[in-house]
Amino acid sequence: MDFLTVLGLAAATLTTIAFLPQMFKTWQSKSAKDVSFVMLVTFNSGVFLWLIYGIYLQALPIILANSVTLFFNLIILWLKIKYR
Amino acid sequence: MDFLTVLGLAAATLTTIAFLPQMFKTWQSKSAKDVSFVMLVTFNSGVFLWLIYGIYLQALPIILANSVTLFFNLIILWLKIKYR
Repeated sequence: MDFLTVLGLAAATLTTIAFLPQMFKTWQSKSAKDVSFVMLVTFNSGVFLWLIYGIYLQALPIILANSVTLFFNLIILWLKIKYR
Repeated sequence: MDFLTVLGLAAATLTTIAFLPQMFKTWQSKSAKDVSFVMLVTFNSGVFLWLIYGIYLQALPIILANSVTLFFNLIILWLKIKYR
């Protein structure tokens, strides 16, 4: 695997797993007052479009990274609504 | 511009501007207690790697989207530290 691929995979992994600590934090504290609802809705919409883009391109890395990111962020959005 | 390019640009725009409302919310409320510090550090690191990736590829859309996202998220991280 070349340097550029490793760099891209590292980038994708970090921007995907980043939302795990937010998910667990909100789950545990049962509070998401300081997390912007508009950010969550806009970000989820954008990640959904990235997913469609990846499916059109049949690009597995784009599909995988954005599926997982969308899954985590939909849970954070659900927790935000649940604990509002 | 073909459909796929428009789709990619729409996706990039949404996942970039998503962080503006979070920035303004934190700025106004002076509180980021519910925003995960580990998420911010991990996400900023990942976006930084995406930026390097885009520079290597000389891909202007990747460079632009990730520069702006990094700028917004570094401000959110700074506010998180400032108001902790």
